[in-house]
Amino acid sequence: MSKKFAVIGVGGYIAPRHLRAIRDTGNQLVAAVDPKDSVGVLDQYSFDIKFFTEIERFDRYLEKLKRGPEAGRVNYVTVCSPNYLHDAHCRLALRVGADAICEKPLVINPWNFDALEELEAETKRRVYTILQLRVHPALIKLRDSLKDSKRMHEVELTYITSRGPWYQVSWKGHADKSGGVATNIGVHFFDLLIWLFGSVQGIKVYHSDASRMSGFIELENARVKWYLSVEKNDLPEAVRAAGKTTYRSIQVDGAEVEFSEGFTDLHTRVYEETLAGRGFGIADARPSINLTHAIRSAEISPKDELTHPLLRK
Amino acid sequence: MSKKFAVIGVGGYIAPRHLRAIRDTGNQLVAAVDPKDSVGVLDQYSFDIKFFTEIERFDRYLEKLKRGPEAGRVNYVTVCSPNYLHDAHCRLALRVGADAICEKPLVINPWNFDALEELEAETKRRVYTILQLRVHPALIKLRDSLKDSKRMHEVELTYITSRGPWYQVSWKGHADKSGGVATNIGVHFFDLLIWLFGSVQGIKVYHSDASRMSGFIELENARVKWYLSVEKNDLPEAVRAAGKTTYRSIQVDGAEVEFSEGFTDLHTRVYEETLAGRGFGIADARPSINLTHAIRSAEISPKDELTHPLLRK
Amino acid sequence: MSKKFAVIGVGGYIAPRHLRAIRDTGNQLVAAVDPKDSVGVLDQYSFDIKFFTEIERFDRYLEKLKRGPEAGRVNYVTVCSPNYLHDAHCRLALRVGADAICEKPLVINPWNFDALEELEAETKRRVYTILQLRVHPALIKLRDSLKDSKRMHEVELTYITSRGPWYQVSWKGHADKSGGVATNIGVHFFDLLIWLFGSVQGIKVYHSDASRMSGFIELENARVKWYLSVEKNDLPEAVRAAGKTTYRSIQVDGAEVEFSEGFTDLHTRVYEETLAGRGFGIADARPSINLTHAIRSAEISPKDELTHPLLRK
Amino acid sequence: MSKKFAVIGVGGYIAPRHLRAIRDTGNQLVAAVDPKDSVGVLDQYSFDIKFFTEIERFDRYLEKLKRGPEAGRVNYVTVCSPNYLHDAHCRLALRVGADAICEKPLVINPWNFDALEELEAETKRRVYTILQLRVHPALIKLRDSLKDSKRMHEVELTYITSRGPWYQVSWKGHADKSGGVATNIGVHFFDLLIWLFGSVQGIKVYHSDASRMSGFIELENARVKWYLSVEKNDLPEAVRAAGKTTYRSIQVDGAEVEFSEGFTDLHTRVYEETLAGRGFGIADARPSINLTHAIRSAEISPKDELTHPLLRK
Repeated sequence: MSKKFAVIGVGGYIAPRHLRAIRDTGNQLVAAVDPKDSVGVLDQYSFDIKFFTEIERFDRYLEKLKRGPEAGRVNYVTVCSPNYLHDAHCRLALRVGADAICEKPLVINPWNFDALEELEAETKRRVYTILQLRVHPALIKLRDSLKDSKRMHEVELTYITSRGPWYQVSWKGHADKSGGVATNIGVHFFDLLIWLFGSVQGIKVYHSDASRMSGFIELENARVKWYLSVEKNDLPEAVRAAGKTTYRSIQVDGAEVEFSEGFTDLHTRVYEETLAGRGFGIADARPSINLTHAIRSAEISPKDELTHPLLRK
Repeated sequence: MSKKFAVIGVGGYIAPRHLRAIRDTGNQLVAAVDPKDSVGVLDQYSFDIKFFTEIERFDRYLEKLKRGPEAGRVNYVTVCSPNYLHDAHCRLALRVGADAICEKPLVINPWNFDALEELEAETKRRVYTILQLRVHPALIKLRDSLKDSKRMHEVELTYITSRGPWYQVSWKGHADKSGGVATNIGVHFFDLLIWLFGSVQGIKVYHSDASRMSGFIELENARVKWYLSVEKNDLPEAVRAAGKTTYRSIQVDGAEVEFSEGFTDLHTRVYEETLAGRGFGIADARPSINLTHAIRSAEISPKDELTHPLLRK
Repeated sequence: MSKKFAVIGVGGYIAPRHLRAIRDTGNQLVAAVDPKDSVGVLDQYSFDIKFFTEIERFDRYLEKLKRGPEAGRVNYVTVCSPNYLHDAHCRLALRVGADAICEKPLVINPWNFDALEELEAETKRRVYTILQLRVHPALIKLRDSLKDSKRMHEVELTYITSRGPWYQVSWKGHADKSGGVATNIGVHFFDLLIWLFGSVQGIKVYHSDASRMSGFIELENARVKWYLSVEKNDLPEAVRAAGKTTYRSIQVDGAEVEFSEGFTDLHTRVYEETLAGRGFGIADARPSINLTHAIRSAEISPKDELTHPLLRK
Repeated sequence: MSKKFAVIGVGGYIAPRHLRAIRDTGNQLVAAVDPKDSVGVLDQYSFDIKFFTEIERFDRYLEKLKRGPEAGRVNYVTVCSPNYLHDAHCRLALRVGADAICEKPLVINPWNFDALEELEAETKRRVYTILQLRVHPALIKLRDSLKDSKRMHEVELTYITSRGPWYQVSWKGHADKSGGVATNIGVHFFDLLIWLFGSVQGIKVYHSDASRMSGFIELENARVKWYLSVEKNDLPEAVRAAGKTTYRSIQVDGAEVEFSEGFTDLHTRVYEETLAGRGFGIADARPSINLTHAIRSAEISPKDELTHPLLRK
């Protein structure tokens, strides 16, 4: 039977992927909220979606549904608000009797997991998150291929995705709201690396500013040099010449991991898994959140032989 | 030489058409403002666009450019904020030494034209608006075909474009901010009708609520029954069955005017005309604004033989 | 032992009375929230009040305290946000394990009581409201004097309190946010009348607009003509001549009830009662909320002999 | 003849001093704007003040008055919005044909004076600011006493004014919006010192964080050690013991300047001067704005014998 969804942050950039995932998994969006009212996008999905610009009125509506006939209740609340509001909006979901499906990062600071976990226990509802790289076919294949290898791998992660000045003006540019570059654009990759190579043994951070961060991570089975940036001038010459604005590379033992295809419907895949009872929960999200928090809090180390090549130039 | 543009309301629904028009006419966007910061769309156009969330800081930046080297000055300010802010934002444009290119309706209330015209005279700058139907090839052809006819035409205008509940929650649902249905979704058609059939001789309004309005207009060369709605239940059965959510029909003397194609780049066409010195100014916009204001203020008449068929059902 | 308080809406007009009541009852304010950040008033009470501009961050802080040592937990959340948010903010209080003390009106629409009552039962916490006229010494005396009388009294209630144009621009001028004049400035008096004269038997409404409402109420023991206005031109000549901007009169059987003194510390009195376990709860608030809702929804009756004299002029 | 005023930022902390100054100088407030709608304070002054929550609508109203009968025009716009908006709001004043009376600091960054000065020339209107210490009787007396002395004075300025956590959460705690501690709470004193002792010859800054700054200034006729703080723990023991939350001290050659009295109506005094054509303009404001900007931009020096005693502890 089709499930009922409500979406928090429906006017934002990432919302359409969730709207599509809800529709493409055969479910129904019944309510949405966003402080901005420019949400004509909803008309592509249904003309029967209650809309609110204030979280309090949204909460009132979901409470009313919760106390009404079972058929009308919201089963899932999708959270795609700015990062620093994720945990508050997940609590809202649990309190109105729904499970939460939350964009990454689930929380900015690890200690906010605790209240979420207690609330899960109290409400018997669950918090799920979107770790979409874990359902990427090429990456699943890579993981399988690495499974039996117990030796140490050398990994180099480079992710440069150009953003204009708006980025720093927006909540994404404020570390207390986005967690900064490592959290906001990096958390997916850090989750991927831990999922592929095991838990974190140690870190170093060589550079950290509002638009780029770089460091080193020792995992159980890999040593990772990483470089993350939203600065277009960091793009390799060849990439820029080709008119591209994003460069993404993961090298394992010198070989490029090819995963540029197959990104389009990963949200839908995660929804399918979640609806089938195989969603990613707090325990799954915790290691990469711990890591990004450690990176954010680390002192800067002098460059050494573990430094990513882009930073040594 | 390429012109410099700044955009007010860059995070809204209609902004991308302006962004494309600026790019496709070979010009350059240098600054943008929107109270909401979810404007990643900018990255599709340039990584060198200053962005602001407050109109005051945007004004400061344009003032600074105005007083700097001539090459850096903004030539045009595009206004695509909510309707009720259009005239204030056009004044901002003129004051910082730029021409304004403003979404429809240029103003909600006709008397706000006066201050704009005086300011045009004082600043020697111009306010242009987007009356895109006037550059639609099929409609230009229609106008030519009607030019020599001096007899009275019978016209029926029907425009039903479904909107979900968000519409009434947003500024579009507040008459003081959008002008209501006749102004917000109708002004283009009213401008078209006046452009085709001459000035307004008299009006009747039969119905007016937050989601539908209907009335009659006598023009120099036409008698127009009109019906405008954002209510999906108003869609003709056949349209709904075809899975469409919009129905647009103009019948002249019983024959359907076919203009469903060719809508995609009308903003760009208007920009071309404007940049070539053939833009639509206040004098062009005034008749349809006067008309929509009269419709908004009219008392409701009892239905009669001049009433649109959809309202007589 | 002193109790810990948090306040929602601390930047508003009525907040200082709550701040004083918290202090004067020997308790401690530890957290506050308001979307506007102009809250220097806090410095008059303590320099150790956590402050938030977003309800989500406030909720996170209270959740954290709830899960920390018992001595740090918030016992009461004072709600003095705009009327239409009261019930959502009371729910927040209950959910974080606190009792709510909420400004009038507790809710705008009676059905929102239901979710609050269920949540009270689920959380074992209570929602209290401020019905301060019930603790006014002169009115308590009046009530005592009426207690044994079972005959029908003739009552005339007139309350005219001038407000400038800002009132209609603010949330108070929007019926969906304030409930309109009868709810926003009248609910105290309606509660008083029911408390004095028994339950509502029937109503009539003769006039209703954004700045004045007038009607008739039959109570068990009284027939009430009432007139409420925020329009300064409604002030009696003599009042205006004296330079006053408010006129408040309750006549019982032709005799004026004198209660103009003793208004200053009624909030503190209600706090004392509430802290002593004698607070006013949902059951107390319900009759006057039902009444104001009925008034808001009533059709307008033609004037008759039950109409308030000011409306018959 | 009485002048007409409009006020920007009427809901803020400092607005009441301006409202009183307008009334007490016999003038009339006709319009006001603030994004927050909690402005019942207006009712203490008049019931005929147009109120707006959006600067654009306020601008429209003033433009309309400007183009209407001369008697209705606004002569002065009072600016008491957050610091970083001051210059934009002064430009608004000039553009609608009014003089501006602006809270300190007139601008945060000195280069914003340039556009204001050009606009003054273009519009033939003036920008005034509030430098209220210059009209303080005790300080005028001090200045007179120093006038003929040409020797170097030793000055120690200490200003500690406790603020709770709300301060850092509000715009005042963001350096780009308030200018930081030296600008926000210090600019008056720096203006005073320059007015008393002549222009700045050199500066040192020893400490700078979000709640305290300290440095040294060499003026023509004085060497100034200064210390500014919003941190209650910086209060001298004796001050704290007396239950006070502010400590203000200026010592000249070891002697305390007594000026704790006479602060109540300084805004009104400045208004009187301004209305009489003796207001403080851009030229008056510039030196202290230049100084606070230099302090904000300075590198931190190691402590030495010129360091304020509180920092040497």
